[in-house]
Amino acid sequence: MKTWRIGVAGLGVVGGGLLPLLTGRQGQLSQIGAGLELAAVSARNRDRDRGVSLEGVAWFDDPVDLASSPDIDIFVELIGGSEGPARDSVAAAIAAGKHIVTANKALIAEHGAALARAAEDANVALFFEAAVAAGIPVIRAIRDGAAVCDIDYVAGILNGTCNYILTQMDRRGSTYKDALGEAQRLGYAEDDPLFDIGGLDAAHKLAILTVIAFGVCPDLKSMPVEGIENIALADVGHARDLGYRIKLLAVARRASESVELCVRPALVRERHAIAQTGGAENIIYFKADPLGVICLTGPGAGAGPTASAVMADIIAIARGARGPVFNRPAKDLKAASVVNPIVQIARFYLRFSLQDVKGAIAAVTEMLAANDVSIDSMLQPPVGEHPGKPAAVDVVITTHSALDKNVRCAVDAISAKPFVIGEPTVIRIEEF
Amino acid sequence: MKTWRIGVAGLGVVGGGLLPLLTGRQGQLSQIGAGLELAAVSARNRDRDRGVSLEGVAWFDDPVDLASSPDIDIFVELIGGSEGPARDSVAAAIAAGKHIVTANKALIAEHGAALARAAEDANVALFFEAAVAAGIPVIRAIRDGAAVCDIDYVAGILNGTCNYILTQMDRRGSTYKDALGEAQRLGYAEDDPLFDIGGLDAAHKLAILTVIAFGVCPDLKSMPVEGIENIALADVGHARDLGYRIKLLAVARRASESVELCVRPALVRERHAIAQTGGAENIIYFKADPLGVICLTGPGAGAGPTASAVMADIIAIARGARGPVFNRPAKDLKAASVVNPIVQIARFYLRFSLQDVKGAIAAVTEMLAANDVSIDSMLQPPVGEHPGKPAAVDVVITTHSALDKNVRCAVDAISAKPFVIGEPTVIRIEEF
Repeated sequence: MKTWRIGVAGLGVVGGGLLPLLTGRQGQLSQIGAGLELAAVSARNRDRDRGVSLEGVAWFDDPVDLASSPDIDIFVELIGGSEGPARDSVAAAIAAGKHIVTANKALIAEHGAALARAAEDANVALFFEAAVAAGIPVIRAIRDGAAVCDIDYVAGILNGTCNYILTQMDRRGSTYKDALGEAQRLGYAEDDPLFDIGGLDAAHKLAILTVIAFGVCPDLKSMPVEGIENIALADVGHARDLGYRIKLLAVARRASESVELCVRPALVRERHAIAQTGGAENIIYFKADPLGVICLTGPGAGAGPTASAVMADIIAIARGARGPVFNRPAKDLKAASVVNPIVQIARFYLRFSLQDVKGAIAAVTEMLAANDVSIDSMLQPPVGEHPGKPAAVDVVITTHSALDKNVRCAVDAISAKPFVIGEPTVIRIEEF
Repeated sequence: MKTWRIGVAGLGVVGGGLLPLLTGRQGQLSQIGAGLELAAVSARNRDRDRGVSLEGVAWFDDPVDLASSPDIDIFVELIGGSEGPARDSVAAAIAAGKHIVTANKALIAEHGAALARAAEDANVALFFEAAVAAGIPVIRAIRDGAAVCDIDYVAGILNGTCNYILTQMDRRGSTYKDALGEAQRLGYAEDDPLFDIGGLDAAHKLAILTVIAFGVCPDLKSMPVEGIENIALADVGHARDLGYRIKLLAVARRASESVELCVRPALVRERHAIAQTGGAENIIYFKADPLGVICLTGPGAGAGPTASAVMADIIAIARGARGPVFNRPAKDLKAASVVNPIVQIARFYLRFSLQDVKGAIAAVTEMLAANDVSIDSMLQPPVGEHPGKPAAVDVVITTHSALDKNVRCAVDAISAKPFVIGEPTVIRIEEF
């Protein structure tokens, strides 16, 4: 049995989870038919105790040197970031003919096509199951399980931090700010959580799934991405009263000549599994012909799940799995023509805060009608008296299917009225 | 690019779904980096129109001849059955050095270990993703995705026919007999549906997952298997009133020195995803350390989903995937020591039909107490008057955690009483 020599660059959270799997399970490893040996590592701090003996393991200060070392067969990149040492070391590993496993979503989302092309030219594997939804084997399920199927859509919750916050708002009535603080205390969100909260992390993962599912490379800059920063506790409550939950959805859907892509908050019916996915969990649905609708759920982050996915890729390489990185040769990947969401038709949830003046609600409904937006339901919670303040009325409307553009026009026109307080809320209702 | 020559034996429902994928998607196939060619087929009826031209495809009357033909590289067995031509042709393919893909759960459940050993000795792949839950990539998820993880349990709904029947009883109030007839009309259940209804089909699939997850081969004859034949509409209704659904569950759980295995109806809390899996869908949960809890759902039967899974295996072979069949060398597989369920502790749902005589209910509760079975809830729906008949009272009891053996003892003692009508119902409550 051949022994594969592994080099690991980056010994942070995921690397720390991987080391015991590589060094502590030698019995299991030999049993599963793959000889694996931790041959070399690279990290910033040589002295930190990582709970695992690194005696006899070569140390490299520079991950690029590790990547091209003759002492390894598989290079595992766990440094992170789309540029700098992560990108340089993966490029060096390809040039040196090493197989590569990475958990780096930013790197694959931004440079995946070019790296895949280089890897395919060099005849090395480039695997990244851990980059999307950590331990949930979604890349395996789409790339391998649905290899010749026509994918209709891929949709789900790809960011556990946002889902944790929205779940806390829904179940505990926490404000957005409190829930975010709690997520940071629990280590779900970074100190600077903008990357999660703003939807960019989910956008990276969706971009990777889009390449695998549809063979097109989306331009991240043109992808419609909205985060959860503007979701108010009131919206979470109204959505619940209407039989929905608000979730940060990532959706890639086949359109006639292109792909519809978006990351944004959406109302999902409470009976649907997506609505019921709580806390830091991830969920992914995809529909493939003739495979059908497949759904996967599990932990979308964390050292154990992510390291398990990295390990799965290492073993797949040791067991011989190759084939094109994104399920077709990288040279055949096309630029994605992303559909502008304003031409899409959907149902919408709208909330307006109005001064309690005569004719305000009539004006709102008239402007919706004037823009061909028809109302499905309207909800006006009782206001009560607020002595000394002008009374404000929250009006919640759900629409029938309408053109996105028309809804935006109507909302803009309504916003311009003097009796409208603040910015109206516009959230899509997604039906699956 | 190498072209892999495929031989398909068996052109029934699944074979019929596979042919268009093999012959109609050549563009996609070449794109995904695998050259595949339908080289030869074997079936009983040469003249039947299968909607796909078989011109230029070699025909074999005997699948064993096809399996050993020098004209093929991969043998696809879709004949079915654990003996006869299916087993003979797979053995012949291994002997001839062909890679094998099969959708045959009976064959793998009954002879998988021996076939795996032969395949590993001959250095050929033996893949069977389609044998468990059709298109749901559960074998991939456990064997590849959780390769070095310690599996804690695998549990789920593995038979779509039973789930369809139970769902119809629950949602439409159909009787068991009517729901079974409907399942037969829709083609879910065979004319002789005993294999599905009695739990054997689920037991086959559970046996296969058990080998992959735990490295032990269960003896099908010693596996506790109960079907849904005795589930009454009344039980479905009472379970619903208590906040549960009745599902045919297949469970394999790591025990201290063995594996707990069973296929049987169980009450599952209505909020759990297993309870919400309706119709002919399948669902599988597994818990792996350090991967976490992963859940997969999708269509567990049908031509399209099953053929897609067969195709996924063919492509995996073409892309180089090898490794031990059951995630460790077949020579290292052990016989499973199946835990006798009577030593297990669980909560139970009990239903007794009693003649409305004084002291009957008191006698029931006393005999439970005498056997250390304590009552969690008791429900006695109103009886009303039945002129001319002795009134019968249905008493529904849920227990706290109790030893299975004690519950059986108590129920046997209660059954022996003259005021008990018919057989009491005993169903486990499974908590996840």
